[in-house]
Amino acid sequence: MNQTPPSTGFQVDQPRIRAAVREILEAIGEDPEREGLQDTPARVAKAYSEFFSGLHETPDDILGTTFDIDHSELVLVKDIPFYSTCEHHLVPFHGTAHVGYIPGDDGHVTGLSKLARLVELYARRPQVQERLTTQIAEALCEHLDPRGVIVVVECEHMCMSMRGVQKPGARTVTSAVRGQLRETATRAEAMSLILGK
Amino acid sequence: MNQTPPSTGFQVDQPRIRAAVREILEAIGEDPEREGLQDTPARVAKAYSEFFSGLHETPDDILGTTFDIDHSELVLVKDIPFYSTCEHHLVPFHGTAHVGYIPGDDGHVTGLSKLARLVELYARRPQVQERLTTQIAEALCEHLDPRGVIVVVECEHMCMSMRGVQKPGARTVTSAVRGQLRETATRAEAMSLILGK
Ligand SMILES: Nc1nc2c([nH]c(=O)n2[C@@H]2O[C@H](COP(=O)(O)OP(=O)(O)OP(=O)(O)O)[C@@H](O)[C@H]2O)c(=O)[nH]1
Ligand SMILES: Nc1nc2c([nH]c(=O)n2[C@@H]2O[C@H](COP(=O)(O)OP(=O)(O)OP(=O)(O)O)[C@@H](O)[C@H]2O)c(=O)[nH]1
Repeated sequence: MNQTPPSTGFQVDQPRIRAAVREILEAIGEDPEREGLQDTPARVAKAYSEFFSGLHETPDDILGTTFDIDHSELVLVKDIPFYSTCEHHLVPFHGTAHVGYIPGDDGHVTGLSKLARLVELYARRPQVQERLTTQIAEALCEHLDPRGVIVVVECEHMCMSMRGVQKPGARTVTSAVRGQLRETATRAEAMSLILGK
Repeated sequence: MNQTPPSTGFQVDQPRIRAAVREILEAIGEDPEREGLQDTPARVAKAYSEFFSGLHETPDDILGTTFDIDHSELVLVKDIPFYSTCEHHLVPFHGTAHVGYIPGDDGHVTGLSKLARLVELYARRPQVQERLTTQIAEALCEHLDPRGVIVVVECEHMCMSMRGVQKPGARTVTSAVRGQLRETATRAEAMSLILGK
């Protein structure tokens, strides 16, 4: 769970979500008063506050604290598992993110857990995978002034497994590469570190 | 997708779902007019009509046609993949169902695909896994007059992976066994057929 406090004053309007969920239960032909559904509106409102908590946070909260460590090679956190919500169908998509950067000369190094928190922040919004990938890369560029950044994200989208085209197991891979990591050899090395099991 | 026509006249109220989804988007602090979200209410309404289509169908539609074949041993369809929706949090749970029965003396045999359709019918409702398992077993008992029935369901619940206790990979196993299949030897044989890979 994201322990970062909200950066904006915005609070998810739980009573409004509860009312809307009751509407949905009736609209599908359910009885919101039957045992089992009575607490559903409140549970969904609480769950949505979690799933969308990242809408009200900025990376400043996470990348605000940096260290000065003399390290000028790639730092890579691989296989960060995460869950997000597809903004088109409001169903989950989930998988792993790989996040790496090369610290800059005057740049900063951040705590490793902060890379995972950054993924979480952007995942906890109504999202598409491409934007999630780009947002992580850009937040690192902005806050760490690094020589390069690489973000690779691999997900299964429930909107493609449980409905619509119904292709369980299909995985979508996206990447965002910035600065020195765009150069052929550096990029190839980073990719082989990411893909090597 | 379930091709069985609805058994009741009930139609999911899509305009009502669309309005409720707009409410939810505003309640979480999103702009329902931004590009990417404009069609979300309509997409969710369509998706929910699919996810909950089983509320308005009965097993009669599926198990109505039976054959008389002289076969008095276990018929088992293993590894039927399916997706359902947790009635507590309205997030997906998914996994596989194994459905078997021993035809009765005066009983009937049904098409194999009908066993999978039966799983789908009950999965396409707001559900809990235990009820899903029992409902499949009871529909078979009622319609086929079998000597025994066994249903084993194994699922991952996204409400336990993506939120709350956050235990991705945890799997829940439930079973419902009726008639002759409750007897030790028969049950053990069926279980070993189900578990044997
Ligand atoms: N590029 C990209 N596409 C996505 C993401 N999430 C997501 O639902 N989509 C796609 O958004 C499109 C929405 O299409 P649509 O407006 O025709 O809606 P639909 O529900 O009828 O489409 P579908 O039944 O093909 O899924 C679908 O092709 C879906 O796969 C994502 O993260 N990135
Ligand atoms: N037996 C059973 N329990 C289920 C199913 N689906 C499902 O959400 N549950 C459980 O229903 C309970 C709802 O508990 P709760 O009213 O305290 O709601 P909550 O969201 O605060 O619980 P949680 O945060 O522990 O998940 C949870 O323990 C959840 O794991 C199911 O199919 N079968």
